[in-house]
Amino acid sequence: MVDRIRLGMVGGGKDAFIGAVHRFASRLDGEYELVAGALSSTPQKAMESGALLGLAPDRTYGDFREMAIRENRIKGGIEAVAIVTPNHMHYPVAREFLKRGIHVICDKPLTSNLADARKLAKIAHDSGALFVLTHNYTGYPMIRQAREMVAKGELGAIRVVQVEYPQDWLTEAVETTGANKQSEWRTDPARSGAGGSTGDIGTHAFNLAGFVTGLELDALAADLQSFVPGRRVDDNGHVLLRYKGGARGMLWCSQVAPGNENALRLRVFGEKGGLEWAQEDPNYLWYTPFGEPKRLLTRGGNGARDVAARLTRTPGGHPEGYIEGFANIYAEAARAIRAKKAGQPIPADVVFPTVDDGVAGVAFVDACVRSSARNAAWVRLG
Amino acid sequence: MVDRIRLGMVGGGKDAFIGAVHRFASRLDGEYELVAGALSSTPQKAMESGALLGLAPDRTYGDFREMAIRENRIKGGIEAVAIVTPNHMHYPVAREFLKRGIHVICDKPLTSNLADARKLAKIAHDSGALFVLTHNYTGYPMIRQAREMVAKGELGAIRVVQVEYPQDWLTEAVETTGANKQSEWRTDPARSGAGGSTGDIGTHAFNLAGFVTGLELDALAADLQSFVPGRRVDDNGHVLLRYKGGARGMLWCSQVAPGNENALRLRVFGEKGGLEWAQEDPNYLWYTPFGEPKRLLTRGGNGARDVAARLTRTPGGHPEGYIEGFANIYAEAARAIRAKKAGQPIPADVVFPTVDDGVAGVAFVDACVRSSARNAAWVRLG
Amino acid sequence: MVDRIRLGMVGGGKDAFIGAVHRFASRLDGEYELVAGALSSTPQKAMESGALLGLAPDRTYGDFREMAIRENRIKGGIEAVAIVTPNHMHYPVAREFLKRGIHVICDKPLTSNLADARKLAKIAHDSGALFVLTHNYTGYPMIRQAREMVAKGELGAIRVVQVEYPQDWLTEAVETTGANKQSEWRTDPARSGAGGSTGDIGTHAFNLAGFVTGLELDALAADLQSFVPGRRVDDNGHVLLRYKGGARGMLWCSQVAPGNENALRLRVFGEKGGLEWAQEDPNYLWYTPFGEPKRLLTRGGNGARDVAARLTRTPGGHPEGYIEGFANIYAEAARAIRAKKAGQPIPADVVFPTVDDGVAGVAFVDACVRSSARNAAWVRLG
Amino acid sequence: MVDRIRLGMVGGGKDAFIGAVHRFASRLDGEYELVAGALSSTPQKAMESGALLGLAPDRTYGDFREMAIRENRIKGGIEAVAIVTPNHMHYPVAREFLKRGIHVICDKPLTSNLADARKLAKIAHDSGALFVLTHNYTGYPMIRQAREMVAKGELGAIRVVQVEYPQDWLTEAVETTGANKQSEWRTDPARSGAGGSTGDIGTHAFNLAGFVTGLELDALAADLQSFVPGRRVDDNGHVLLRYKGGARGMLWCSQVAPGNENALRLRVFGEKGGLEWAQEDPNYLWYTPFGEPKRLLTRGGNGARDVAARLTRTPGGHPEGYIEGFANIYAEAARAIRAKKAGQPIPADVVFPTVDDGVAGVAFVDACVRSSARNAAWVRLG
Repeated sequence: MVDRIRLGMVGGGKDAFIGAVHRFASRLDGEYELVAGALSSTPQKAMESGALLGLAPDRTYGDFREMAIRENRIKGGIEAVAIVTPNHMHYPVAREFLKRGIHVICDKPLTSNLADARKLAKIAHDSGALFVLTHNYTGYPMIRQAREMVAKGELGAIRVVQVEYPQDWLTEAVETTGANKQSEWRTDPARSGAGGSTGDIGTHAFNLAGFVTGLELDALAADLQSFVPGRRVDDNGHVLLRYKGGARGMLWCSQVAPGNENALRLRVFGEKGGLEWAQEDPNYLWYTPFGEPKRLLTRGGNGARDVAARLTRTPGGHPEGYIEGFANIYAEAARAIRAKKAGQPIPADVVFPTVDDGVAGVAFVDACVRSSARNAAWVRLG
Repeated sequence: MVDRIRLGMVGGGKDAFIGAVHRFASRLDGEYELVAGALSSTPQKAMESGALLGLAPDRTYGDFREMAIRENRIKGGIEAVAIVTPNHMHYPVAREFLKRGIHVICDKPLTSNLADARKLAKIAHDSGALFVLTHNYTGYPMIRQAREMVAKGELGAIRVVQVEYPQDWLTEAVETTGANKQSEWRTDPARSGAGGSTGDIGTHAFNLAGFVTGLELDALAADLQSFVPGRRVDDNGHVLLRYKGGARGMLWCSQVAPGNENALRLRVFGEKGGLEWAQEDPNYLWYTPFGEPKRLLTRGGNGARDVAARLTRTPGGHPEGYIEGFANIYAEAARAIRAKKAGQPIPADVVFPTVDDGVAGVAFVDACVRSSARNAAWVRLG
Repeated sequence: MVDRIRLGMVGGGKDAFIGAVHRFASRLDGEYELVAGALSSTPQKAMESGALLGLAPDRTYGDFREMAIRENRIKGGIEAVAIVTPNHMHYPVAREFLKRGIHVICDKPLTSNLADARKLAKIAHDSGALFVLTHNYTGYPMIRQAREMVAKGELGAIRVVQVEYPQDWLTEAVETTGANKQSEWRTDPARSGAGGSTGDIGTHAFNLAGFVTGLELDALAADLQSFVPGRRVDDNGHVLLRYKGGARGMLWCSQVAPGNENALRLRVFGEKGGLEWAQEDPNYLWYTPFGEPKRLLTRGGNGARDVAARLTRTPGGHPEGYIEGFANIYAEAARAIRAKKAGQPIPADVVFPTVDDGVAGVAFVDACVRSSARNAAWVRLG
Repeated sequence: MVDRIRLGMVGGGKDAFIGAVHRFASRLDGEYELVAGALSSTPQKAMESGALLGLAPDRTYGDFREMAIRENRIKGGIEAVAIVTPNHMHYPVAREFLKRGIHVICDKPLTSNLADARKLAKIAHDSGALFVLTHNYTGYPMIRQAREMVAKGELGAIRVVQVEYPQDWLTEAVETTGANKQSEWRTDPARSGAGGSTGDIGTHAFNLAGFVTGLELDALAADLQSFVPGRRVDDNGHVLLRYKGGARGMLWCSQVAPGNENALRLRVFGEKGGLEWAQEDPNYLWYTPFGEPKRLLTRGGNGARDVAARLTRTPGGHPEGYIEGFANIYAEAARAIRAKKAGQPIPADVVFPTVDDGVAGVAFVDACVRSSARNAAWVRLG
């Protein structure tokens, strides 16, 4: 078989949602082989989870530091590690691997606070290892295409950005019932960070808007709420956006909006046209050149560009989804890792979210929290 | 034939969009007969327009004051007048008719400024005549149903209101080309008022959100823009909403969003469920009780309530639209007018937007403009 | 007021669905005034219905023959009559008015059997009066546009026609419950004709496909079913279509398809492109030139042609619906009637379904029934 | 790593669409490892394709017989083979592997003619090896759910089945241009079989309808066309369906319908309700209990059943697509293979299309061709 990239994982034990997604994504193109893991902070669960995944017992670790040390020493140790722990652990875990030159593929948000984020960025830049942040929605082909269309000026100068990310899974106080593990740490500021919905999904929305438009946020005014009594982090956020250069926008994130599963949606309007994309139907991109009929561009179909086709595995009408988009981040990372390994420059068309995007995301959450604390006053981003 | 209500019209000469709509709406149920008009401020055009509509020459007026005076005097003079002029004329025109006891059906926004609005409200209340404001979207059956569902507590306490009203017809500086009459006065603060998109469509969105939720707006923070160079009023508005009782919301109105024709959309989320409605597909109402599958309620179909059925003319699957919704306002007005005429109380289930709703709408625009001038500071309403 | 066309109505008493629709349609543009009626075959109900509509007592008839005779004699008698009775009465009623030179606007299907249809066509042609059949779906602007696009060759030679018209209101044996008047006569072969769903809605589908494509049906093979035990007419029909010139198609009509209110849908595919239109969302027309992205054409919006604009009352994004489409048939009829009255030729662009279209529709039903009786053998039309 | 099932592949060299899909599907869950292949009938291309996939040179074969013989002999030889050749090769290839006890995962249709299909079924049944046919659409979670809902009687007795599968990629004579390899063999009766669109996609539609409804087709009447001049197989098929027990249906398949990429759609109507599913938006299932509002069931969301959840990898709102559905067939096959290996019975809930489903599919194509040759006469299915 092709010489697969040896991958480790920290976090992602049985029943964890995002750990499983990273594994699907790593497997789809046959570029990685999961060979080691510290899959849980509970040693017993770590061993069980490793066994379920078929990891060798001596590569199933109860502690991530031990894993970093040993994998760095042994022949055939991991080349990259996927970090899928709660947010507050991203920094300490990533640090251990980065300083040993092991590439990091880390879930978002980058860290649970801005100080950690900045330290981590410095460590990553100094390490020589790659740092890939899985803002996975940037891996969707039609998002790549939207980004290219904006970059090529097909919409003219961007005026308005409407981005939203509503969910409904925290409509009730599920974190108090013991029935939903993820809700517990997601609503715990110590593990999740000061932002709740802003940190979990607002960062995705913020990242996606910037990724597609290429605009840099200048200032925001945020009105955050915790609607569910007793909840310790925001579960709904309304944010006004001012981008450098004059574009304006709105961002809405919510985890208390019944009827919304994972309804990330981006609309961008420029002087010459508009685009609309919805994550739950990701194979479509609406494009309206001003004064002409709306066009429904499809991934792999008529109207799809090379930039989308490159990250597509099936023809139009054969829907791809969340895992495929996620896998595209892994595929881009694989290209970068292989280039590094071969001592070659990373190909110019490789695109993935970086540690700096991660710092921007944490700065966004930080700014939202600060603004909201000051009655939605305008707050500048770093 | 049924004894129709004798209707006059001020404004709405040939080529005027909204005047024609009022005429369609007045005709649909056979409740009104247009018998007099001051259809244009240009006498020549007024006469031509009257002739086209088959008005008798002696009931075709070049001046609205003359019309009010004479119609009030003659036997069989008008019982009600539809006012479809540019905004700044609503106040002086309505005053003339109200003070003569002639019912007024007036297009929105109520006036071009808050002072006029308040004066007009007083006049209306003192007059004994009816004042019906055509926030026509409140006439859609599924909007009535949404309102009832909220009122009955089916969504629980409302937490979040997302309302938006994007259009694209002012994407370019069409008001400078001479080709689009409506754009000229709509972008002229003297005729339209200080709000551009906020006044024209933002008021509709604001009204609709309040109508459905029954919530009263406490404060707003608005960031208004005039994206088209040289434009004298806002063509895009981003507004944070705080309702009394704790609900929060966002309102977006835009006339520079390519791909949007008339895309008013309302989403309401409560503790127990959510609703979604879009003006361009008004026969549908999405309803999601939390934890259950989404349901697509249809006007006239399964899931439609009496309150919707009462304002519906055709069975489910036979789409009704903008004119029918508008006509429902006229139908409600007719019921009120007939009750008045008969010396009876207005039936309890008659619902139409009033002069007070109009004041609230102008106050909303006023607050938006003031907030935006103060860098989107929070501004209280009322 | 404009000199309105004096209209009578036969059928359409209180609670009748289609009679009310004809009245809405006749009123919308202010071209007609309903002044006489034989609204029910039950004299008592006829009088009550007339009173409700404000008809003068002496123009409220208990018998259609009496109405035809008297209206023909009196000064200011009706110029046109709308026939909205059960199918089997179309022929005898229309005959009485046609032979007195009164224009007829008749609901579909033309008659309950082919012999009547042919006799009626002869009478209509001999009469000099106009005969307008309300295949109302041909009145939708986007249908007119689709027709023009095909006629202009924008789709190339048509290859495939897929047309369907499912409903669900006869899923259960509602005709036996006494609760649904319309279902009683619609499922009674004596009043409805030999076709059930084929006659009621299959004719619409057949007519629409022919209207848009301009193709003439050569032969069909029909497999009709009566799924509800005891039902005397078909409630579901599957029909293979062979058009002259080589195009092929399928037609499905059903009144036992739960989830379908009135879901008429037409798809046409040619050598160079495809079109798709759905009655429940009539303001949209999907157009796909082969090899290009799909375009969503909207009534009144970008991509709308003159032929659609002429029959449109509001701008794009202000939805029009069933009544507006129906009213377009009345508007076309009004233009023809006024031309006749003025002794002028009917304008070339006036389009409405004629008695000949009606004969074709009844022939379609007849062919379906004959084919199905012969185990879905091919049956020639015409 | 988990002890993966050793997989070989016949066909699927570089640039082949379906071979790549099988590889994605085999990798997603980490259950298979591709270790051998006869990827092309051209030895040079076979070697190149093997190298690209990282196959060992000694497991890259130029001939499938040689591969079957050697893999059967060597230690660690393949346990299963994926056959992704043109249709006419399915039979000879499968035979070689089956008779050596190697499990077969074979693309559809089963064979290019009915005689081969029957022989193959016998060989498969006699072999003791598993035969899995990749009617991949049966792997979609919402299809499994639809099937369960029908089986549990939630729709009542099924009356009407509407299934269609339009595409547009053969709208022009692309098989004559040399630019599209797949079109060449797909339109060549010698390699594809007598059915064109019927064989390629009609079989999918036929299979899906039967899979969901559990109904067995009794007879059909087919009108097949070859619209593109010179085309040797059908590119459009219209088929009337009669199921045992009285349900009726229509099947449309087309490869000349511009605007359709891969628009497989199934609608099923019973006495008590209806279902609708579209392959291009596979995460949704419309369900309408008669007399109630439509419900939009989502994969992983509210309304999803265990039978869907079992085959789902991500929560609701995280769309899955074609590859995931395909991978579900591989996952089911893996469970069966592991059970066999362990000498245990195949778990009762393992579901995949079998060789017998394949025979039924080829019999369907055969019946379509025979019926069409006899002017769409009714033809019984064996």
